Amino acid sequence: MSSVHRSRMDRARTRMHELGIDVLLVSLGADLPYLTGYEAMPLERLTMLVLPGDRDATLVVPRLEAPRVEEQPDAFSIRAWDETEDPVSIVAALTGPVSLVAVGDQTWARFVLDLQLALAQSAFTKASVVTGPLRAVKDADEIAALQRAAHAVDAVALEMAQQHFAGRRERDVAYEFIQKMYDAGHERANFAIVASGPNAASPHHEPGERVIQVGDVVVCDFGGRMRGYCSDITRTYVVEHGTSEFVAMFDVLAEAQAHAVSAVEPGVACQEIDAVARRIITDGGYGEFFIHRTGHGIGLEAHEDPYLVAGNDTKLEVGHVFSVEPGIYLPGRYGARIEDIVVVTDEGPHSLNLAPHHAYVVG
Amino acid sequence: MSSVHRSRMDRARTRMHELGIDVLLVSLGADLPYLTGYEAMPLERLTMLVLPGDRDATLVVPRLEAPRVEEQPDAFSIRAWDETEDPVSIVAALTGPVSLVAVGDQTWARFVLDLQLALAQSAFTKASVVTGPLRAVKDADEIAALQRAAHAVDAVALEMAQQHFAGRRERDVAYEFIQKMYDAGHERANFAIVASGPNAASPHHEPGERVIQVGDVVVCDFGGRMRGYCSDITRTYVVEHGTSEFVAMFDVLAEAQAHAVSAVEPGVACQEIDAVARRIITDGGYGEFFIHRTGHGIGLEAHEDPYLVAGNDTKLEVGHVFSVEPGIYLPGRYGARIEDIVVVTDEGPHSLNLAPHHAYVVG
Repeated sequence: MSSVHRSRMDRARTRMHELGIDVLLVSLGADLPYLTGYEAMPLERLTMLVLPGDRDATLVVPRLEAPRVEEQPDAFSIRAWDETEDPVSIVAALTGPVSLVAVGDQTWARFVLDLQLALAQSAFTKASVVTGPLRAVKDADEIAALQRAAHAVDAVALEMAQQHFAGRRERDVAYEFIQKMYDAGHERANFAIVASGPNAASPHHEPGERVIQVGDVVVCDFGGRMRGYCSDITRTYVVEHGTSEFVAMFDVLAEAQAHAVSAVEPGVACQEIDAVARRIITDGGYGEFFIHRTGHGIGLEAHEDPYLVAGNDTKLEVGHVFSVEPGIYLPGRYGARIEDIVVVTDEGPHSLNLAPHHAYVVG
Repeated sequence: MSSVHRSRMDRARTRMHELGIDVLLVSLGADLPYLTGYEAMPLERLTMLVLPGDRDATLVVPRLEAPRVEEQPDAFSIRAWDETEDPVSIVAALTGPVSLVAVGDQTWARFVLDLQLALAQSAFTKASVVTGPLRAVKDADEIAALQRAAHAVDAVALEMAQQHFAGRRERDVAYEFIQKMYDAGHERANFAIVASGPNAASPHHEPGERVIQVGDVVVCDFGGRMRGYCSDITRTYVVEHGTSEFVAMFDVLAEAQAHAVSAVEPGVACQEIDAVARRIITDGGYGEFFIHRTGHGIGLEAHEDPYLVAGNDTKLEVGHVFSVEPGIYLPGRYGARIEDIVVVTDEGPHSLNLAPHHAYVVG
């Protein structure tokens, strides 16, 4: 793998040079595994890759976590720090006196503030200006990994359509989704939203104690990570029967989702995909109840560039991968969402999720 | 609960006044649930509490997540932002022109950098200077919650001592720890380290494909969250039999752990507890193989103040809760660690974990 990482670092250096960035400092988030294959632990001990534009890279890592890192002499060397050392000073020394530092977007504030003190002559910007566009365009291996992850959650969605929902707490059904993601080969379950009845009107509902009832609509949005790449799918379930009003609403939603996917092609602006979905939902009379953007990029992270949102005029490129997930939420009543992961190809949109879109009737 | 949060905000305001901090801005991490009962989602949409020293607090939250938040009119109001709004501008407007802003330690760099641009006249410091000492001292309800979480993982440690380890992959045994934590009432499993054979010499080993063998030492360090508060325990297992060299090493470790716990009392410096454990391990001939600090505080977060590490002269106070977890790691051979959560009381140290310390012999 190390030649992959070396080549990604070289591409990052090219962009750094174009943008006048002297050093890239990345820590938490997916920039680090993208560039090194290693993911930092989200804890108080600093792990940070120091990637200068014109010198070799160094991974600064806590001594007790150094055995986790696979050495890659062609890409980076390791500087393990002891419990009584100050990792910020080590990073600052490796950085040296420079004009412009790009720091990983998810780096903790405590380290940013300490680095700003230690590198008082440097200006700081976000690492995503370098890494965002690189990570957004997936290569064939990455798309294959996203495909495997998508197939795994497709199978989970269909298996869950065979389960009984009525009389169970949301949190227990959510845990079943989590277990099935592990069983399907995921190494991590990132989330499992199970939003029933009026809770289905809350897009990011936290599954809780509510007992699912006959007649409920249940929005299930779940995803995790498999061989490093993320899955994310939403299907809507109804317990025994839905109302005709729900069916009418769901038809509008399904049409909006399908048309938004169809609009995906290279050169189209991200915001245009959002606009397609929004137009159909608005024409159907539900515009004010579609309260979130249409989608987000996905890859090493569950949410990453590009975002399908009004105001984002980034043009779609071959290799972009993102969710297309319009939703309609009627406060106090119910809601629905349909989400697939879609790849931009020269032959048009390619949906990685294949589980049918209809509302799944469960017991 | 809201009077608890109001009272914590008032204590935070008192410290802000003492420290000359005008506004506290908290996002990811446990400061937010400590002050509001609400935990931000670790995603790219900003959730941020704006807590001025002399005015009412406002929670800025994405519109689609607003239904997750329980309103607490006596503590804070909610400002939901729409997908096309800029949350940083909203936070900056609520903050106003101030001299010193304290930003949550785990806030993402991208938001820190944007806030620094939007509040160009303000200096920035870490919110933990305000919240760290407050959160470190647990009240009776918090200690009861930590006790329940500790009992749950004690039971898991003992149940796992009845399981068969030999012939199974580390990752499969790790997943069994995770399942048992859920079954024991945890709402989240934070981690399950299962480090077997030579991997046991890697303190933060990521459980993988290695198949556990007869004669292996297996370090199992696992924890999660139960009703908001964290558990964290390490026990060492041996498959069928250990060597006499291992037994001799483990005796030194157990003695070091017990003496370090015994040294816990109000007024003792954090670093002194570390020194007690280190002295015994060094005297036993393993000093160079104890490569991490002795412990970390625990509460709403798995790791928080106070840290038991050389250089930390913070004095222990009644209500401090932390791990005491010395370890010995022989590279390429094996390792061991024993970890309990301990509370500082007027009557001496109180260990929340009660599972026996001996190495558990498993099949």
